Amino acid sequence: MGLDYRVSCCPDGLVTDRRRRIKVLDCTIRDGGICNDWNFSNDLVQSTFKALEASGIDYMEIGYKTSEGIFSREKVGPWRFCTEDDLRHVVDSNRRMKLSAMCDIGRITKAEIGPAHNSAIDVIRVACYAHQLDEALDLLNHAKDQGYETFCNVMAVSTLQPRQVDDFLERLAVSGVDNVALVDSFGALYPFHVRYLVRKYMNYLGEGIKVGVHLHNNQQQAFANTIAAIDEGVDFVDATIHGMGRGAGNCPLELLLFYLDNPRYNAEPILALIDRFASMRDSLRWGYHLPYAMTGFFNVHPRSGIERMSQEDRYKVDDMYAKLSRRLDKEQ
Amino acid sequence: MGLDYRVSCCPDGLVTDRRRRIKVLDCTIRDGGICNDWNFSNDLVQSTFKALEASGIDYMEIGYKTSEGIFSREKVGPWRFCTEDDLRHVVDSNRRMKLSAMCDIGRITKAEIGPAHNSAIDVIRVACYAHQLDEALDLLNHAKDQGYETFCNVMAVSTLQPRQVDDFLERLAVSGVDNVALVDSFGALYPFHVRYLVRKYMNYLGEGIKVGVHLHNNQQQAFANTIAAIDEGVDFVDATIHGMGRGAGNCPLELLLFYLDNPRYNAEPILALIDRFASMRDSLRWGYHLPYAMTGFFNVHPRSGIERMSQEDRYKVDDMYAKLSRRLDKEQ
Repeated sequence: MGLDYRVSCCPDGLVTDRRRRIKVLDCTIRDGGICNDWNFSNDLVQSTFKALEASGIDYMEIGYKTSEGIFSREKVGPWRFCTEDDLRHVVDSNRRMKLSAMCDIGRITKAEIGPAHNSAIDVIRVACYAHQLDEALDLLNHAKDQGYETFCNVMAVSTLQPRQVDDFLERLAVSGVDNVALVDSFGALYPFHVRYLVRKYMNYLGEGIKVGVHLHNNQQQAFANTIAAIDEGVDFVDATIHGMGRGAGNCPLELLLFYLDNPRYNAEPILALIDRFASMRDSLRWGYHLPYAMTGFFNVHPRSGIERMSQEDRYKVDDMYAKLSRRLDKEQ
Repeated sequence: MGLDYRVSCCPDGLVTDRRRRIKVLDCTIRDGGICNDWNFSNDLVQSTFKALEASGIDYMEIGYKTSEGIFSREKVGPWRFCTEDDLRHVVDSNRRMKLSAMCDIGRITKAEIGPAHNSAIDVIRVACYAHQLDEALDLLNHAKDQGYETFCNVMAVSTLQPRQVDDFLERLAVSGVDNVALVDSFGALYPFHVRYLVRKYMNYLGEGIKVGVHLHNNQQQAFANTIAAIDEGVDFVDATIHGMGRGAGNCPLELLLFYLDNPRYNAEPILALIDRFASMRDSLRWGYHLPYAMTGFFNVHPRSGIERMSQEDRYKVDDMYAKLSRRLDKEQ
C-alpha cells in the first residue's frame, strides 16, 4: 500500500519530465577526501568506482589534480593528485561512467593538464571564488582545448550580493564552459534561496550550459535543497556516499537515488558499500553536529566548526555562538 | 555581509506574515524518551524545562500519561507516567510555557485524567491510528471537559489512501479538538507530500482548529518538511533538542529557532544544553543511519531499523533492503 500513496499525491507531471534528464555526479572521494586527507585505500576507491559504475551514476569525481609539492605526499593520499598511474590502478578503461578531477586556482598549472585522449580523466572541474574568475576561465579554456568536458564551481555564493552573482554568471554565459554548479560551500542556504539562485543561474546561463548544484549539509538541508533544485529543473546534482564530505558533509547519494526513483539508477551497489563508509564516519565525524550547524547558519567557512570538533572536550558551543554573533555585528 | 543576502532573496512577505503566529512544541523528553525508556535524570529534565522556558518555547511535551502497570517501573523512567508528584519536582508553578502530556489509546483510562486545575499538565495530546479514532475522540472529549487544551496526532498517515485521510479529518473537524498535527511517523514524506497534506488538513479542519506537524528525520527531511509546512501556513510545529527521538529522530529545535529568526525565541539556552544531548546521541544513536533511511523510504515502521541498529555488527543492509523490497512486492 505504502508507495501508492506517494504517487497519488505527486503534484504535477512537470517534476517527472525534468527529472528524466538529471545527471548524477558522485564526489565521495574528492569531497569526502577532505575529511581524511584523501587517505583512502586503493581497494575502497576501486570498490567505490565499481559500485558507482554498476549503479548507473553519470560522473565520478575521483579527486583533485594538483601540482607536485603543493601538498606533502607524506600527509595526503594519491587522490589529491590524480596521476594517470594511480588512476589506472583503480578504474576500468572500458567504462560507461565519466571521470572528473577538480582543480583549485593556484594549485595546478595549465602545462600539467595534457590532452584528454592521454588521460583517464574526462572532465576538468575548476573551483574558484568569484574574484578568481579570470584564472578559472583561463584554466577552463585550456582544458576545453585539450578535449575535456568542463565544469565550473563558483564557491561561497551565499556571501555575495545578488549583483555580484549576476556579474560572474554573465561572464560564464559567454565562456564556453559546459556545466556550472550552484555551490553552497557553507551549508547556509534554505530551499527558497536555492530556488531563487537556481532560477538565476538558469536564466543567466541560457540553454547551452548545464546547471547543477553542490550543496552542504550543515543545517540538514543538502538533500532537501537538492530536491528543490530538481523541482526547478537543474541538469545535474552532486552527492556523496553516506553524505561523506567536509564538515557536515553533502547530499547522501543513497537518499538521492531513492528519491529519483529512476530505473536508470540502482541504489543496491551503493547500499552494499555503506557499512564501510559508516564506520569511517564514526571516527571522522562528518554529519550533523552543532558547530557545523552554527557556521552554516552564520554563513561562514566551516573551519571554526572543524576546529571545535577536533577538540576532545565536545562542542562547548556557547562561546562559539557568541563569537559568531559578534563577528556579524561588526560586519554590519 | 552574509545575512543581508538571505534577506534580499526572500521570495515574498507572506512567509513572514504566517511565521509570526507559529507556535513551537518541544517534545524532547516525550519522543526522545523512546530512545532511553524515559530514563532521564531529574536534573536533565529540570534543565530542559528551564532552557525551554527561557527560550520562549510555547509548549513542552514532557512525557506520557500511562496507567500504572502498563510498563514496568523497573524498566521505564517517570516520564512514561507523568505523575503530579514527579512533575512538581522539575517544573516551576509560575511558568509561561504550557506543559503537554501524550496519551496512547488503551494505555490510560478516562478516570485517570482528572481536572486540569489540579494538574501541572495544561494539554492532553492523544496519539492514535486512524482506525482508533473513536477511542481517541472519547478521550479527547473527556480531557476537554476536564479543562485541558486538546491535541490529536493521527499516526502513520503516509500509509493511508487520501480518502482515508479525508474521512478522519471530517470527523476531527466537528470534534471540538483544539489542535491536530500531521504526523510523519515513518519519516516517509518529502516536502511535496507535506505541502499536499498540510493543505488538506487546513482545508478540512477549517478556521477553528490549529494545524501543526510532527515529522521524523529518516530521510533527512524533518527540518525541510517543517519549513515546507511553515510556508503552507501551519499554526504550530514540533521539534526536539538536537533532534532526539525514536530512530532517526525529529526536527532539531535549534535549527528551527535559527530559521524562525523571531525575537520571541532565543536559541542560546538550548545551545547551552546541546553538549549533554550530543553525548547521549553517541550511545543512543538517533540521527541519520541507513537502516532508518530505508524504513523511511519503504514507508514502514522503524522497528526493523531499530533492531538492525541494536546489533553490534554494523548495518549489514543488503538483506534488509531485499526484504523490504520483497515485502512491498507482496503487498501490491
